[in-house]
Amino acid sequence: MSVSVGDVREAAGRITGYARRTPVLEVSSGLVLKLEGLQHSGSFKARGGFNRALAAGELVEAGVIAASGGNHGLAVAYVARTLGVRAEIFVPEVSSPVKVAGLRALGAHVTQTGSIYAEAYEASAKRAAKTGALVIHAYDQAEVIAGQGTVGLEVLEQTGGVDTILVAVGGGGLVAGITAAVDGRAHVVAVEPERIPTLNRALEAGGPVRVEVSGVGADALGASQIGAIAYDITAAAGVQSVLVSDDAIVEARQEMWRSYRIAAEHAGAAAFAALRSGVYTPAPGERVAVVVCGANTDPATLV
Amino acid sequence: MSVSVGDVREAAGRITGYARRTPVLEVSSGLVLKLEGLQHSGSFKARGGFNRALAAGELVEAGVIAASGGNHGLAVAYVARTLGVRAEIFVPEVSSPVKVAGLRALGAHVTQTGSIYAEAYEASAKRAAKTGALVIHAYDQAEVIAGQGTVGLEVLEQTGGVDTILVAVGGGGLVAGITAAVDGRAHVVAVEPERIPTLNRALEAGGPVRVEVSGVGADALGASQIGAIAYDITAAAGVQSVLVSDDAIVEARQEMWRSYRIAAEHAGAAAFAALRSGVYTPAPGERVAVVVCGANTDPATLV
Repeated sequence: MSVSVGDVREAAGRITGYARRTPVLEVSSGLVLKLEGLQHSGSFKARGGFNRALAAGELVEAGVIAASGGNHGLAVAYVARTLGVRAEIFVPEVSSPVKVAGLRALGAHVTQTGSIYAEAYEASAKRAAKTGALVIHAYDQAEVIAGQGTVGLEVLEQTGGVDTILVAVGGGGLVAGITAAVDGRAHVVAVEPERIPTLNRALEAGGPVRVEVSGVGADALGASQIGAIAYDITAAAGVQSVLVSDDAIVEARQEMWRSYRIAAEHAGAAAFAALRSGVYTPAPGERVAVVVCGANTDPATLV
Repeated sequence: MSVSVGDVREAAGRITGYARRTPVLEVSSGLVLKLEGLQHSGSFKARGGFNRALAAGELVEAGVIAASGGNHGLAVAYVARTLGVRAEIFVPEVSSPVKVAGLRALGAHVTQTGSIYAEAYEASAKRAAKTGALVIHAYDQAEVIAGQGTVGLEVLEQTGGVDTILVAVGGGGLVAGITAAVDGRAHVVAVEPERIPTLNRALEAGGPVRVEVSGVGADALGASQIGAIAYDITAAAGVQSVLVSDDAIVEARQEMWRSYRIAAEHAGAAAFAALRSGVYTPAPGERVAVVVCGANTDPATLV
């Protein structure tokens, strides 16, 4: 299974009026930031959620179901509220009361179960099999990836074309969608924290492998393995993989607030960190877009 | 003296490549936010500063001079650093060490003098007369107003036209510039805190009058009297004046973070507060743009 630029275009049509067309900001000559933290629910995840739900047509009474205590859960809850359907979100028992409250504030039915994400995910899968609710995966579904890819179409349209797009990677839904969307019209650079190298290790190993997850990006990029579809798409396209340190992410995030007044979560600053730390150095004249993929953060920690 | 749409167009050409073309975000059908907090130095003030400095041609060694412990001072310091000229900024003795440090970090020469702004301003005027430095006024100069007006041109271009633009008022430079820029093509609504009604009282009195200054908007909107040029422009154009409470501003600012992940200072949230509190209610189908004019705030206070 793969995702084509046609699938992404179809997704773009489908989610128009549901997901926001987020703006780009040219911060210096040849450098554009895509401000996806301004998306509904504070991250790009609402795009994939809307595409998956809308592509399914009329939903059963059980609505939609997902496992996530983070941005994906918030997005699915937002999507369900917007479409007027039920959302069940499964999160590990250790999830913070703030996150659970945030999901409930969006009207989601939250189940806290299992000590780690994988256990919450298993429980959600069992529940879905029983209720018939539509499963919206955090990254490993074609409709989700096509939805996330609309970020890439918009970057090309809004900039008139760029040479390179830098994007952070967790489970790989966003990078895979963007890779499909640009379809060779731009070079894609996949940026991961050194402490969560899901794509980097998979490219080395020739296929998805489990990695240890830790560090400042773990709350939003903390998949323990790259998604199978995302691996196929990015490996086939020759996406470039780079790693950034946690220190570089922390500094990039503070710099984005200081210089641009852009609020980003750590994951949302990872792609910019690759530029700022010199891990990725554009050639003279190279036009670069950096995806700022999320802003769900405590603003008190921006300075 | 007045400012024409031609002056604003000339300013737009002059400051291209110096001031950022900030993005707009459509947050709901018919409602667009102009994200001017993403401007260099965190507010719209850099536009007027660049236009005034660039219109003057080659600057003397004494460079530019301004009186302001707030956004205008930061903007003039930024403009001077960018153009490679000297900046002297006069601030009252009571100015916070954080603000003074911020100005010095931009390379400005800071003089702390006088117990209130008016005394610092007088001292800056005397100094300018001695050194020949170019005075960049915070609002009451035609080139400054024309520069701020470029916000209005961009709103019309980026949206394809709106019916109404809501904008906060302090000394009136921004509202006057936008009024000149739109030149009758949109209705302009001037929003002021109830506790700093400089334009509102002036329109009642038939000319600029002194008002008491207090409340949450005072750090950025705290002019004690509307500028003479701004008064002439806005009164002649029949700009609508509305007032918002401090509570409405505080709530609007928090709502902007919660719903849109936009960081705004209190002054930057005043125009949105007029909509949110119902002080200004658009007609069905009315297309509205709200100028979010600044983001120089402690992000810890956004929630």
